[in-house]
Amino acid sequence: MDHLKELDRYFNEHREAHLAELKDFLSIPSISSLSEHKTDMRKAAEWLAGSMKAAGLENITIDDTPGHPVVYADWLHAEGQPTLLIYGHYDVQPVDPLNLWDSEPFKPEVRDNKLYARGASDDKGQVFMHVKAVEALFKTNGTLPVNVKFCIEGEEEIGSPHLPKYVADHKDKLAADVIVISDTGMQGPGQPAVCYGLRGLAGVQIDVKGAKGDLHSGLYGGGVRNAIDALVELLASFRDKEGTITVDGFYENVLPATEEERAEYAKLGFDEEALKKELGVNELFGEPGYSYMERTWIRPTLEINGIFGGFSGEGIKTVLPSEAGAKITCRLVPDQDPDEIVAKLRAHIEKHKPAGVELSVTEFDKGKPFLTPYDHPAIQAAGKSFEAVYQVPTAYTRGGGSIPIVAAFDEILGLPVVLMGFGLSSENFHAPNEHFHLENFDKGLRVIGDYYFEVSDALPAAE
Amino acid sequence: MDHLKELDRYFNEHREAHLAELKDFLSIPSISSLSEHKTDMRKAAEWLAGSMKAAGLENITIDDTPGHPVVYADWLHAEGQPTLLIYGHYDVQPVDPLNLWDSEPFKPEVRDNKLYARGASDDKGQVFMHVKAVEALFKTNGTLPVNVKFCIEGEEEIGSPHLPKYVADHKDKLAADVIVISDTGMQGPGQPAVCYGLRGLAGVQIDVKGAKGDLHSGLYGGGVRNAIDALVELLASFRDKEGTITVDGFYENVLPATEEERAEYAKLGFDEEALKKELGVNELFGEPGYSYMERTWIRPTLEINGIFGGFSGEGIKTVLPSEAGAKITCRLVPDQDPDEIVAKLRAHIEKHKPAGVELSVTEFDKGKPFLTPYDHPAIQAAGKSFEAVYQVPTAYTRGGGSIPIVAAFDEILGLPVVLMGFGLSSENFHAPNEHFHLENFDKGLRVIGDYYFEVSDALPAAE
Repeated sequence: MDHLKELDRYFNEHREAHLAELKDFLSIPSISSLSEHKTDMRKAAEWLAGSMKAAGLENITIDDTPGHPVVYADWLHAEGQPTLLIYGHYDVQPVDPLNLWDSEPFKPEVRDNKLYARGASDDKGQVFMHVKAVEALFKTNGTLPVNVKFCIEGEEEIGSPHLPKYVADHKDKLAADVIVISDTGMQGPGQPAVCYGLRGLAGVQIDVKGAKGDLHSGLYGGGVRNAIDALVELLASFRDKEGTITVDGFYENVLPATEEERAEYAKLGFDEEALKKELGVNELFGEPGYSYMERTWIRPTLEINGIFGGFSGEGIKTVLPSEAGAKITCRLVPDQDPDEIVAKLRAHIEKHKPAGVELSVTEFDKGKPFLTPYDHPAIQAAGKSFEAVYQVPTAYTRGGGSIPIVAAFDEILGLPVVLMGFGLSSENFHAPNEHFHLENFDKGLRVIGDYYFEVSDALPAAE
Repeated sequence: MDHLKELDRYFNEHREAHLAELKDFLSIPSISSLSEHKTDMRKAAEWLAGSMKAAGLENITIDDTPGHPVVYADWLHAEGQPTLLIYGHYDVQPVDPLNLWDSEPFKPEVRDNKLYARGASDDKGQVFMHVKAVEALFKTNGTLPVNVKFCIEGEEEIGSPHLPKYVADHKDKLAADVIVISDTGMQGPGQPAVCYGLRGLAGVQIDVKGAKGDLHSGLYGGGVRNAIDALVELLASFRDKEGTITVDGFYENVLPATEEERAEYAKLGFDEEALKKELGVNELFGEPGYSYMERTWIRPTLEINGIFGGFSGEGIKTVLPSEAGAKITCRLVPDQDPDEIVAKLRAHIEKHKPAGVELSVTEFDKGKPFLTPYDHPAIQAAGKSFEAVYQVPTAYTRGGGSIPIVAAFDEILGLPVVLMGFGLSSENFHAPNEHFHLENFDKGLRVIGDYYFEVSDALPAAE
């Protein structure tokens, strides 16, 4: 714990300088989705490369892609020690509507110990923390207890279109023992979390076609299949009234959470009443036998995301609709495979094909679920570092959504991923008045610094 | 049958004069929906009144309503004989798109023994036939074998907003033994039909509300009820997979068609293969145990006319929708009551309320089903007159749709209604190039003339 004291002293001493630097980084409008910011994107990449160089990182390159560049850097002199691959992004979301911002999005401002700027929390602030943690270790420890590689992209907010190819093309350069990402949130204020699993995604659009065109429901009603009626019959077959999905083999490859994990979730003391109030519902609903948290973290689900057909204007139109459609997507958990799930959905649709209509099925983009085992030493090490700084037990969580790039890293590099984020869900990322609680900026710097020691102790060395 | 020979001779002799008169009537652009034709509407009413006077009708009045006037006329000197109330309309549909007409809509033109003009078939041509049939009887027979009352409105094409009140206000003046309407079609070319029943209508919109707003399907999916999913569950409960409606008591008051009626329908030799080809479907679909014709004529049904919820754009949006809705309408048959059916739908919805959401139900306008018994002498008399002229068996049919004014007459005056129409479904009413087959104009004049004798024999005298 001595290094933690050293880090504490160092970060206290340099706090104003670090904040000034971060504000400088945040003042570059690196909006990846808007072509007029193309030069700002490169400017941000160059700023970051400069900051990495000042921190003591080596082999810094700004690697071009067909879109915005990836910034790479490393330090690989911790012989016999494991290697961390740090992923993050220097691009940000657009800022409109501008009039809803209390201060300008690219003129960072501290109010009430929160730093307001686009990208403060998502993700420039957190990327900056990793760079400064490295710098602090060099200054206080003289060296790093692990090897590190940084891979910071500029296209996360537009879906990382070129990163999977970049990672595949640079597989050897990016080889590591564990991937560390700080682009997620804490469990709540004062409550650190390490996220070790995410759900995947697979889905289809179902289009139903009956007669050539819409028919008069008086003349034909009762004698010709109604496309909406057929669709409803089919959709109703996907789950039972209790919420269990009835697609053959749907749950087949679901890896059950361990008793230990479920006990951890139960300890988090989730407040269902507060959630009901927040959502404005009288009751929660889901698969029997699981808590709300388990339903959204460790269980797969099937949602109808949209449905359409016939007349949806005001009042009545007595039409017998000839077309209807629905979009359904499944959130998947380990070890469900998106391709297999789509095949099972197709088989289910075939088996339950309603009479009197034709069906067509279109597949959506898929995403694999991801899981680093709960008891993986890199996960547990992160939890320890959080606890050392925050002085409360770390929440070991999963996420219900997907982070496509995590699945891509998992798939291409085959490495465990540690999601240790310092954001809070209240921090308006993707919205006006994005901000970052400086309490978590300060503590996070120490957590990351500490983690290098913890993970060095916990992980076996790379071969 | 002697009177038929006389009528034949008379109509042959006056064919050109009658056609010229009808063309004159059709050249008045009596479009009820367009306010710039308000004076044309009155002009058409006056033209009709003049024609009625020339035919020998009496007590002719042009009765104002808050909209377009009703033309009334009668002849009530057939003492001891029944009274017919003839309903029709002198207003027509708009004509756009004008460029799709081969000849001008208000410059009637005969081509290939078809009279082209807006209103030729629907309904000025058929109204004119009734007037000329009366005239012909006076000229050939010296008197009418029945009493007649004409009630010809000017607002049928805009939904008859003022006729129900007019009928209710003039209940005594309109008292009769049977209502005759020629505003429907024949069963097919050369195939006359008497329609003696129509379906009614009742329906509701169901709105489902889950959480306050749409949610991220990753974060909440599996733990919060999806509004579309809830709606699908509810809608699926309305019928079984075979197409039978499962709402408690839905079929309770359905008056079964007699064996005789069903035998008549079977004799019509409906071509299901031709219908499938026309509609572009591989199979027809409906309630087991009934033919296509029975499903659409004598059986009630429940259609989902529209459904909506969530994301319906291109591609994928992984939203957990908070709102969804559907419009459903039932076609009803005698003796189902629309109010009772709505109450049963409400009870069903209450009983099958899905968990985790709130529902609201909005009622649509209702229409009662209508039925004059198949063996009613006024119906059978119409069939005989058709057969006498067309020399083929008459089809005794029902209609799957509703004609609101028929239900209103049925309800207010409580009289049997005979629907004897001379149009063909191919005649483009409500579309460009509306026309009327003069073969049916010629034969129809004779059918109507003959019907006065037949119905006089068949019906008991009014008290």
